[in-house]
Amino acid sequence: MKNTFGSSVSLTLFGESHGPEIGAVLDGLAPGIPVDEDYIAGKLLLRRPAGSISTGRVEGDPFRIVSGVYKGYTTGTPICILIPNENSKSSDYSAARSLARPGHADYTAFCKYHGYEDYRGGGHFSGRLTAALVAAGAIAQSALEKKGILIGTHIAKCAGISDRPFRNLESDIQTLSGLRFAVLDQEAAGRMQTAIKEAAQDGDSVGGILETAVTGLPAGVGEPWFDSLESLLSHALFSIPAVKGVEFGDGFSLADQRGSLANDSFAVQDGKIITRTNHNGGINGGISNGMPLLFRCAVKPTPSIYKEQETVDFLHNTDQKLVIGGRHDPAIVHRARVVADCVTALVLCDLLALRFGTDYIGKPR
Amino acid sequence: MKNTFGSSVSLTLFGESHGPEIGAVLDGLAPGIPVDEDYIAGKLLLRRPAGSISTGRVEGDPFRIVSGVYKGYTTGTPICILIPNENSKSSDYSAARSLARPGHADYTAFCKYHGYEDYRGGGHFSGRLTAALVAAGAIAQSALEKKGILIGTHIAKCAGISDRPFRNLESDIQTLSGLRFAVLDQEAAGRMQTAIKEAAQDGDSVGGILETAVTGLPAGVGEPWFDSLESLLSHALFSIPAVKGVEFGDGFSLADQRGSLANDSFAVQDGKIITRTNHNGGINGGISNGMPLLFRCAVKPTPSIYKEQETVDFLHNTDQKLVIGGRHDPAIVHRARVVADCVTALVLCDLLALRFGTDYIGKPR
Amino acid sequence: MKNTFGSSVSLTLFGESHGPEIGAVLDGLAPGIPVDEDYIAGKLLLRRPAGSISTGRVEGDPFRIVSGVYKGYTTGTPICILIPNENSKSSDYSAARSLARPGHADYTAFCKYHGYEDYRGGGHFSGRLTAALVAAGAIAQSALEKKGILIGTHIAKCAGISDRPFRNLESDIQTLSGLRFAVLDQEAAGRMQTAIKEAAQDGDSVGGILETAVTGLPAGVGEPWFDSLESLLSHALFSIPAVKGVEFGDGFSLADQRGSLANDSFAVQDGKIITRTNHNGGINGGISNGMPLLFRCAVKPTPSIYKEQETVDFLHNTDQKLVIGGRHDPAIVHRARVVADCVTALVLCDLLALRFGTDYIGKPR
Amino acid sequence: MKNTFGSSVSLTLFGESHGPEIGAVLDGLAPGIPVDEDYIAGKLLLRRPAGSISTGRVEGDPFRIVSGVYKGYTTGTPICILIPNENSKSSDYSAARSLARPGHADYTAFCKYHGYEDYRGGGHFSGRLTAALVAAGAIAQSALEKKGILIGTHIAKCAGISDRPFRNLESDIQTLSGLRFAVLDQEAAGRMQTAIKEAAQDGDSVGGILETAVTGLPAGVGEPWFDSLESLLSHALFSIPAVKGVEFGDGFSLADQRGSLANDSFAVQDGKIITRTNHNGGINGGISNGMPLLFRCAVKPTPSIYKEQETVDFLHNTDQKLVIGGRHDPAIVHRARVVADCVTALVLCDLLALRFGTDYIGKPR
Repeated sequence: MKNTFGSSVSLTLFGESHGPEIGAVLDGLAPGIPVDEDYIAGKLLLRRPAGSISTGRVEGDPFRIVSGVYKGYTTGTPICILIPNENSKSSDYSAARSLARPGHADYTAFCKYHGYEDYRGGGHFSGRLTAALVAAGAIAQSALEKKGILIGTHIAKCAGISDRPFRNLESDIQTLSGLRFAVLDQEAAGRMQTAIKEAAQDGDSVGGILETAVTGLPAGVGEPWFDSLESLLSHALFSIPAVKGVEFGDGFSLADQRGSLANDSFAVQDGKIITRTNHNGGINGGISNGMPLLFRCAVKPTPSIYKEQETVDFLHNTDQKLVIGGRHDPAIVHRARVVADCVTALVLCDLLALRFGTDYIGKPR
Repeated sequence: MKNTFGSSVSLTLFGESHGPEIGAVLDGLAPGIPVDEDYIAGKLLLRRPAGSISTGRVEGDPFRIVSGVYKGYTTGTPICILIPNENSKSSDYSAARSLARPGHADYTAFCKYHGYEDYRGGGHFSGRLTAALVAAGAIAQSALEKKGILIGTHIAKCAGISDRPFRNLESDIQTLSGLRFAVLDQEAAGRMQTAIKEAAQDGDSVGGILETAVTGLPAGVGEPWFDSLESLLSHALFSIPAVKGVEFGDGFSLADQRGSLANDSFAVQDGKIITRTNHNGGINGGISNGMPLLFRCAVKPTPSIYKEQETVDFLHNTDQKLVIGGRHDPAIVHRARVVADCVTALVLCDLLALRFGTDYIGKPR
Repeated sequence: MKNTFGSSVSLTLFGESHGPEIGAVLDGLAPGIPVDEDYIAGKLLLRRPAGSISTGRVEGDPFRIVSGVYKGYTTGTPICILIPNENSKSSDYSAARSLARPGHADYTAFCKYHGYEDYRGGGHFSGRLTAALVAAGAIAQSALEKKGILIGTHIAKCAGISDRPFRNLESDIQTLSGLRFAVLDQEAAGRMQTAIKEAAQDGDSVGGILETAVTGLPAGVGEPWFDSLESLLSHALFSIPAVKGVEFGDGFSLADQRGSLANDSFAVQDGKIITRTNHNGGINGGISNGMPLLFRCAVKPTPSIYKEQETVDFLHNTDQKLVIGGRHDPAIVHRARVVADCVTALVLCDLLALRFGTDYIGKPR
Repeated sequence: MKNTFGSSVSLTLFGESHGPEIGAVLDGLAPGIPVDEDYIAGKLLLRRPAGSISTGRVEGDPFRIVSGVYKGYTTGTPICILIPNENSKSSDYSAARSLARPGHADYTAFCKYHGYEDYRGGGHFSGRLTAALVAAGAIAQSALEKKGILIGTHIAKCAGISDRPFRNLESDIQTLSGLRFAVLDQEAAGRMQTAIKEAAQDGDSVGGILETAVTGLPAGVGEPWFDSLESLLSHALFSIPAVKGVEFGDGFSLADQRGSLANDSFAVQDGKIITRTNHNGGINGGISNGMPLLFRCAVKPTPSIYKEQETVDFLHNTDQKLVIGGRHDPAIVHRARVVADCVTALVLCDLLALRFGTDYIGKPR
């Protein structure tokens, strides 16, 4: 299946940037989970462009849940969420239909769909669809929170500027849930925003690194080989547009360490087994060990920039110059963080349902 | 499904380190692919421990294909490959049954399987199972080669020492196919091996980074969202034991770049559309763009080390000291590279079968 | 996955009888298939209640396609079709919330969803959802027709009255496509309708048997074991509410035959290999043999009847009497036939895409 | 996936009739299930040809479990079971390589695999592979028995002769478990065997109907639409070679009933909700209602007969006469019944794991 992910809890995504509506179907979630539309709206707000560092396209994202929720609770049957596209300007795009925007999927979509693709605004490839992902993921995340499983993502790096590392995960996650620009060190946050504005003034864009923590996940979740926690989380995380790298625990820096350092030694603390360090990001052999999950995503700079770029006309096989009009973000890393939270929540709900049964996630702790 | 991966072409893995046999079932591969047992044996040889930098456990890996191949060709029905475990020493492990080896899956397996797991030598979690993965993947890789799709992996970094970057991909891949220690710069190779030996003398281990290139893949393969090339490849790559990071193209370093640099501009060359650079690793919007695929895996240092480590007895919830006996590698990155090739081949065969039909991969170019 | 079916071409179904909208997401269909909204509306019309032999609830089924279709053609990305529920009367159902309607899913839904289910009008279990199935399936069926693959279903039996058997399949299928009450023998059709009305007058309902033929399917489609044509078609057909039996070719009557009769002998006709008879319904070893597919579904009588029935109050574990109000059909077999066509079309599109690639079904014959 | 079935508990089948070994990988079963090799051998014995009414090919089926079982218990990791083919006579088949045996898959296999298929003895399509299915299914069935879920199948009909219906299900299932020829009425059993011998003397074969009962399944298992109990069970049952029809409860005869008769009215009995009749076979809306499951499979007569048959040479497109040599059964219905038990057990283990978690089936009642 192409736009569906998950086994026991699954998500199906549909829509195009300039079609009438985008949406998602979230299936397999336990019955009895309270669905708080304000919570969902809050998550959608975090995904929305924010003021001067984001695109002028501002949408209210007035989602509708048309199935699977009754009297404020999940029913256990598929939840379809729809979000209209209210503010699209198709005329911005039509002129350059066959000019491949570098870093975008225009050309690859043409190779795959032979010109039948809805190319306007990136069509089905548009980051716009993450709104539907977030709306569905928010329901999953709220269910996990009731089980004491918390997820939080900060911008560990943006435009070369680093946030402070996670310290106390529970309180850091709490802090992040209220931040529109998810940086723990407010001084760093200011410098990042300045750097984003500078890039915008240059008609350019910047990237960053997202770091996610998950607390409260029980030990013993995940599978040894193809359905390792790393495999399933990376599968979902790489579906976020612009993510080009995923690492768990110390990730790439583990490559330079020695085993005696990289190994997380076990200890008994208050009668419970823990590890003294967490270089492995809470995962051994693909399975959670009861420590927090820790992983990071590399987000490339937004490919839409105002600078003139060299490209081709793929219908006529000719070299061309391209200046992209329309509205676009000089950075998306601050908006992508809520998407990272949400796909993480979806993967964990699926794995918990597989491990403990379909009702588990709906039962109070 | 837990130990099965792939849609149209799928692989199922089974076995334990100290059981009688390990194996894999490769299903869905086109009929009519020549199966060259010497080619498979050659790949298995690359996975085997190599002399002084590897474990003393040397196995001939005398695989048997018990189904799916007839008169030297794939039949189109499931191929089961079995490899006996000839040289296992279970007594090395039984004493410390409930001492969790740091960095290993002993404790997480116990949490998941409640003590019923075959813990000997890591059981089902053992890197030993990659032999079956390689044997099956070799058939897939040989089929791709006949379609002009070449895969090669080098050790981009080991113990902090870097190989030279890829230059001419076709010839570099050709060079790598003959190397037991897959490093393009022989001087760097020597220094890496020295560093591995030094770590071994310290009773310690080292990690590294694998870099893989794929040439000849047509444009238009992959899916926009959950089945993006990055999603599927990372899913498979993270199933390789010890892999803790995966990045495509410039990966994490894209986070520090600006869009004007990160975007790969398109050009027409000899009537064909190419990109001038390949910062995105041959993938736009989850779909191949006709340029070489490029990606890297972080391999953590082997968790089995000879040094004394702190750990717990998870049956009695007590702190303990642990010295791991038995045989183990001071590095596995040089052995893992053929596994990276093979899982890549499996993912690509699956995607090509989905895109172009089940017979495609079996037909001559 | 629970409400999703198919591998390369997949369908996801959502909605409840009395929710705002029902719908389906059809993913993986080739790009470039013309989408004729009149064709879809025509199929929906065949599913609608028809005059005096059907329920008073008449809906226009004004579907909206919100994704995956652009300028009249499929794009290759997911097609979401929505159908509003305009004419539901929830008050008909609320009084008897905890009285299990015999033959319905009220009690099993309660066992599964613990009371959180939207029970109104059968909720997610309602035959109403087949409207979305039909709308999606119609697109698949129209694509097959362009490849020369024709599907037709007649009411082989209703209320104990038999239609004539298929004779010339192509012309019979042609005839059926124009019939609202899909019976080939008009005299039998009249007697069936009379019997349905008599049952209605008794406050009762009748069942029937649907027989489906598929012509033009190439040989070599299907898989030997779990994905046999029979397995996949029956999987889909049993998802149609009220279907309680599926048989291929001579089906259950084969049980009484001898092999010399049941075997379909092969012959060469006009240079092409055919079978002289078709007792096996066009399938040998799970794979199409190039002859027409033939199969039959048993449709039980509509469980909603006006007669008083004995039942329980499952919230209070007490015996009760039940008289079902609201509107319901004395027969659904005539409406289910278009659902049979549509799920057949979906399965065949999936299998053809797997066999010949994702583009196959979109290319002109 | 082609030769793999199931979501949380899955089975992968491989092998050919005349290859060295056939086998199956059973993955996802709970850890801690006792594996009794005698129980498995007993099930395999029931599948074996029995004396004068079966083929001369008698095999000991000396299976080997090479993974997933440790110290007599399932480990939770994949169980691979291998069965050697000890007694195959390939020379019986090679002469007629391109003569399509009517009712067999020779021609369809050729269409699908282009001549690369291992055609000997039916190759991968051979009923021989059901031995591996039975060995794996036996482990699943023994686990269900420990949970109080019992499965039994009798030959409801053979050669036109009917067995008595089920009466007391528990004791009938108990009786059947000890019968090699699974008929409850011994007088009918004798007549069936006589009829089978008569067919054999005529060089012909007979078919039959299998009826399966499952007791002890909790209410609330199964899904509303595509993963209804009927959908999943029929999917698995139609993978049994020669099965051409599947019906649940009264199945096809429901088509002739009225709703007032077909509906199973609910009642409270000893504080528990039951249905007074079981015309729906224990399933409402695709979900178990707590009553016994009841379903029937039509088994066509063995296609291998000694009589001369008309066929084609599919390599040369010519009409031919065929006399099938080798050994074959005049009936397989008595052997297929244990296969029906086993695939039922596999489907139920999968559904119970999805519903109640992976550990459920391994825990004592």
